[in-house]
Amino acid sequence: MFTIVAERINCTRKAIREATEQRDAEVIRTQAVQQTEAGATYIDVNAGAHPDTELGNMRWLLEQVQAVTSLPICLDSPSAEVLAAGLQALDGRPAMINSISLEEGKAERLLPLVQQYNTRVIGLCLSSEGMPNTAEERLAFATRLLETTRAAGVSDDRVYIDPLVRCVSAEAEQGAEFLKAIRLIHAAHPDVHFCAGISNVSYGLPQRTLLNRAFLTMAIWEGLDGAIIDPLDQGVMSQLYAARAVAGLDEYCMEYMEASREGKLGA
Amino acid sequence: MFTIVAERINCTRKAIREATEQRDAEVIRTQAVQQTEAGATYIDVNAGAHPDTELGNMRWLLEQVQAVTSLPICLDSPSAEVLAAGLQALDGRPAMINSISLEEGKAERLLPLVQQYNTRVIGLCLSSEGMPNTAEERLAFATRLLETTRAAGVSDDRVYIDPLVRCVSAEAEQGAEFLKAIRLIHAAHPDVHFCAGISNVSYGLPQRTLLNRAFLTMAIWEGLDGAIIDPLDQGVMSQLYAARAVAGLDEYCMEYMEASREGKLGA
Repeated sequence: MFTIVAERINCTRKAIREATEQRDAEVIRTQAVQQTEAGATYIDVNAGAHPDTELGNMRWLLEQVQAVTSLPICLDSPSAEVLAAGLQALDGRPAMINSISLEEGKAERLLPLVQQYNTRVIGLCLSSEGMPNTAEERLAFATRLLETTRAAGVSDDRVYIDPLVRCVSAEAEQGAEFLKAIRLIHAAHPDVHFCAGISNVSYGLPQRTLLNRAFLTMAIWEGLDGAIIDPLDQGVMSQLYAARAVAGLDEYCMEYMEASREGKLGA
Repeated sequence: MFTIVAERINCTRKAIREATEQRDAEVIRTQAVQQTEAGATYIDVNAGAHPDTELGNMRWLLEQVQAVTSLPICLDSPSAEVLAAGLQALDGRPAMINSISLEEGKAERLLPLVQQYNTRVIGLCLSSEGMPNTAEERLAFATRLLETTRAAGVSDDRVYIDPLVRCVSAEAEQGAEFLKAIRLIHAAHPDVHFCAGISNVSYGLPQRTLLNRAFLTMAIWEGLDGAIIDPLDQGVMSQLYAARAVAGLDEYCMEYMEASREGKLGA
């Protein structure tokens, strides 16, 4: 199975921010229902970045989402305080924390919550010294992240590594280095999962969705088993089903044929 | 550069067969012009399989194609006699022969033409004993093909291996075995090129173009540098440009951006 962390309920998007500020429950609930029906595995909830409002927004958003879907929640915040409040507001369903990294103090602040609430966690290959360039650097970042999570008693299968997608417009090899990193990390840490934000690959280029879909397809072939995506984007979802079928990850193409029968696949 | 062998002028297609029987030059010339403008590298010409008409059809088709494009021709026939007549009918432009294989006597019949006319040649991983199953069997077939071409004085860079795409609907692993074969053959024979017929992967499944595009994308990442495709299929061509950009094969994404500017890319 592929883990789809559904990205639409995010207060950095204007429509969601406004609906949240106005406490327009219908907008948020519709997003949660639609993403659930489209095949989401987790509903990501990002309550914005304003220190004054983020905690209250997070609680209100979680109330709306939990009212209409039984899916697990991916709590998306850099703040331990907001994450703790969010975890307390959950009705006992499973959760994921988005995200820890190697940035100064970040894992130390957030891992106690992963332990206490037995959540899953996204581990982003990013440190205070900067971003990884090569596949080998990404593997080294992932290994350091896993040393931290293991020391906190978190088993590898609860960790979802994001090897950090960078744009190919400036450095043509960044796509290839990411793809090779998936292969290396998978080989070195077979129990770990992945959850990547794909769309950075196309930053600065036209017709970005073509590039995002091609990149997702290659990453699935290399072993990517999760991504932060918009499950209402039929093109991306079609590509996901098709990629898993031709890569041999969908026995007898059952999932692909079912999605086709249900009218879920685009042209 | 990616080698696009443009597949549309093929008498197994009804419209082309009828236009050829009726000597409707305009239909054929339009196909040749459109495929040239869409970015073809070679124009494939297949004159049908009827022993009575194939040779005459081939000569007539080549006359029409050569009248409107200066692209090299890929002569597509199992008959040495038809291929020889076709090669004699060329105006000196480069040619490719589609295809030799390990089927009994086939390479022996056709390789003298490859030598005499200094053509390129597609080598299909197929023998009289049957089709390869695993990546390793595909590598073994390719190696045997290359022993034959080398013995005939044909350098590896004139050979385009087709590792034989098989459908994933019956055997889910056939896509993966093909993709691994690209990697193995590329590593063992670095000078050889590839030219695969992609669309068999989706045989028996709905919405085949989704699967064909995903498979082409993965194959490009593994090193596929040529395919027999329809360059008028904007979806396939868009995917090809996008795949090369994210795989790091398109420096500064120049080809991708030019294709986008010229309106060549679909949604």
